[in-house]
Amino acid sequence: MMHVSWNNLIAKDARALTASEIRDLLKVAERPEVISFAGGVPDPKLFPLGELSEVYADLMADDVAGRGALQYSISEGMPALRQWIAADLAKEGAERTIDNILITNGAQQGLDMLARLLLEQGTKLVVEKPSYLGAMQAFSTRHPDYIGVTMDDEGVVLADLEAAFEAGARIAYLAPDFQNPTGLSYSLARRQAVLELAQRYGAVIIEDAAYCKLSYEGEALPSLLALDEAGRQDEDAGTVVQLGTFSKTLVPALRVGWVTAPRPLIEKLVLLKQASDLHVATINQAVALRAVEKTFPGHIDTVRDTYRTKRDAMLRALEDFMPDSVSFTRPKGGMFVWLTLPDGIDSRALLERALEEEKVAFVPGQAFFCDKSGENTCRLSFSAGDPARIREGIERLANLIRRVHNQ
Amino acid sequence: MMHVSWNNLIAKDARALTASEIRDLLKVAERPEVISFAGGVPDPKLFPLGELSEVYADLMADDVAGRGALQYSISEGMPALRQWIAADLAKEGAERTIDNILITNGAQQGLDMLARLLLEQGTKLVVEKPSYLGAMQAFSTRHPDYIGVTMDDEGVVLADLEAAFEAGARIAYLAPDFQNPTGLSYSLARRQAVLELAQRYGAVIIEDAAYCKLSYEGEALPSLLALDEAGRQDEDAGTVVQLGTFSKTLVPALRVGWVTAPRPLIEKLVLLKQASDLHVATINQAVALRAVEKTFPGHIDTVRDTYRTKRDAMLRALEDFMPDSVSFTRPKGGMFVWLTLPDGIDSRALLERALEEEKVAFVPGQAFFCDKSGENTCRLSFSAGDPARIREGIERLANLIRRVHNQ
Repeated sequence: MMHVSWNNLIAKDARALTASEIRDLLKVAERPEVISFAGGVPDPKLFPLGELSEVYADLMADDVAGRGALQYSISEGMPALRQWIAADLAKEGAERTIDNILITNGAQQGLDMLARLLLEQGTKLVVEKPSYLGAMQAFSTRHPDYIGVTMDDEGVVLADLEAAFEAGARIAYLAPDFQNPTGLSYSLARRQAVLELAQRYGAVIIEDAAYCKLSYEGEALPSLLALDEAGRQDEDAGTVVQLGTFSKTLVPALRVGWVTAPRPLIEKLVLLKQASDLHVATINQAVALRAVEKTFPGHIDTVRDTYRTKRDAMLRALEDFMPDSVSFTRPKGGMFVWLTLPDGIDSRALLERALEEEKVAFVPGQAFFCDKSGENTCRLSFSAGDPARIREGIERLANLIRRVHNQ
Repeated sequence: MMHVSWNNLIAKDARALTASEIRDLLKVAERPEVISFAGGVPDPKLFPLGELSEVYADLMADDVAGRGALQYSISEGMPALRQWIAADLAKEGAERTIDNILITNGAQQGLDMLARLLLEQGTKLVVEKPSYLGAMQAFSTRHPDYIGVTMDDEGVVLADLEAAFEAGARIAYLAPDFQNPTGLSYSLARRQAVLELAQRYGAVIIEDAAYCKLSYEGEALPSLLALDEAGRQDEDAGTVVQLGTFSKTLVPALRVGWVTAPRPLIEKLVLLKQASDLHVATINQAVALRAVEKTFPGHIDTVRDTYRTKRDAMLRALEDFMPDSVSFTRPKGGMFVWLTLPDGIDSRALLERALEEEKVAFVPGQAFFCDKSGENTCRLSFSAGDPARIREGIERLANLIRRVHNQ
């Protein structure tokens, strides 16, 4: 009998899939005695359990709607849900039809399917430095050539973006609102300038709008999708492909997200969705629609108020406890604060000591850089903990950093 | 302003994704006056709506379990659900651990992820002639070289399978139980001989077990997974990768399926699942588990009894009405009967006339052949209709075939 040789059978482009060491290290962070800023998952206390319970009960009490929600459905996604999303986009200034929207398993599947359609070995792909790790995991299954562009306080640096387009890149993945991992947002002027550049080069921007509803101060800025002149004149001719999700505003476990794009791309995405897994769970689409109709926008206000308090607690603690040599972002929304440590402090080594000596966890920033720079950076999430524990955790981390710095 | 050129941006290997003409034609089949044998979807009257309603209510009434079911979860899938599946496999003679199981969005995502891991341009891939269309849609995103092997009454023809292995193929996708589209099953002797061949060549068999619980007569035969000696001695050294799903026995809309495989492959699949869409909807896994614990195996008996009656109605009508020149399979389970028309009758043209003249629909068989043969074949599903309507539809189709034959 000859045994199967898995190493030989795995396709060449799939051999690079390897587990992250950080993930193993962070398993320790799940212990109750650890104050973890590592996660970045929503606070489960915010889930509208009672309302969702009613939605499920109402749906299942209706024989026709209930059985319909349990049957196979079309790959595009439920028309009424796409209609709700289109109406919500319109409120934000982006007029699109339901034919411009595909429902996906969270925004993550949108990233993965866009990677499968638009990337191949060697495709030049612009990403922010740092960028969302999950996006790069999806993109990397296709082995693009990353071109990292630096971020300043107003967003991606224009000269870097233009240089990337000059070098032949035609796809840029950008997160202009409360970015994961930095919490940074683009200014209005930068948004307009980025779009103008993309339009000049005929480039596509993949706009990650996962966190865009989680704004805690000031007026929300229009999305790249809403600002895109080409898309406003003709919904099938735009520059921007936008990813959305209910994971941060309602619940993540339904896995309901969406892609908004010009129809030529949506048509390809629908075919890929069908080949991939047929469609998003029918009942989850039906429940998400009923739940947002029932609870939005009031529920989003509650979510914002809660996370604002947590953010304020983290920022105040950072100001009170961190040495001056540590700088940090002051996000106006989202779930993350980004720390830059003095040069020479390696945040991976710091994490090991933080877990050991202070029972505090965070994510070392290097994993978010396509060029593996950022050794002295850390991502801290304030979404899960309560304010007192956030303050306690930041104090512990600051104490450790002082000790490391003085060594 | 330069417009985005989508045709240039789509990756080379994604350009082949095109919509099926048949699908457009079959949209007509959804009209109420049409008796459709085209679908192949479960009968929604069989969905255990009341029990599922209770499951959702109980889950959401429990604050900890309810909030847990609404949160992100691990990519492998819920341990208790994997444990239930492992116990169910063990009852059927396949001893595997939960580390051999990954939860997927239905069996379709298992097919897609296996394609992404095991296939690349030019990989030799054995499929049955005919084979499941959805599998080939997933496989074709990777552009393998298909090697079609003929089926006889006992399963895939051994000489053809051996020739494929001799030609260098090391992966075979087979559906030994009540295959979609033919309804055919492999005999016990053929199962053993297929496995022996695969083991001799160190080949992997991807066993599609989507329909294996839907047996309507006689004793169920052991799966290839259960018969696989290598896997029984060491659960991480087997020859067989098996795909399962609750779509045919419980409901399809939860999108809960699974892959059972040796651990070296599961570890890669988990990483790909994480990059693709993080995890299957947490609440759907929790609900599926509670629902099968509550309703199986009694519910499966009800499902079997209902489909057996429908199958019997279709086979009796075929015997009563079809001309002798038409042959058909007599499936012992599943949802499909396969028709072979006299040579020279093109089933695509027949479908157009069937919709127009008799208001009957089926799926022309050609789409199920990797080599686009089978012009004179049809797939008929008996799962959706009631027995009287099935009889009526077969009579209408037989009348048309007589007319076509006599022209």
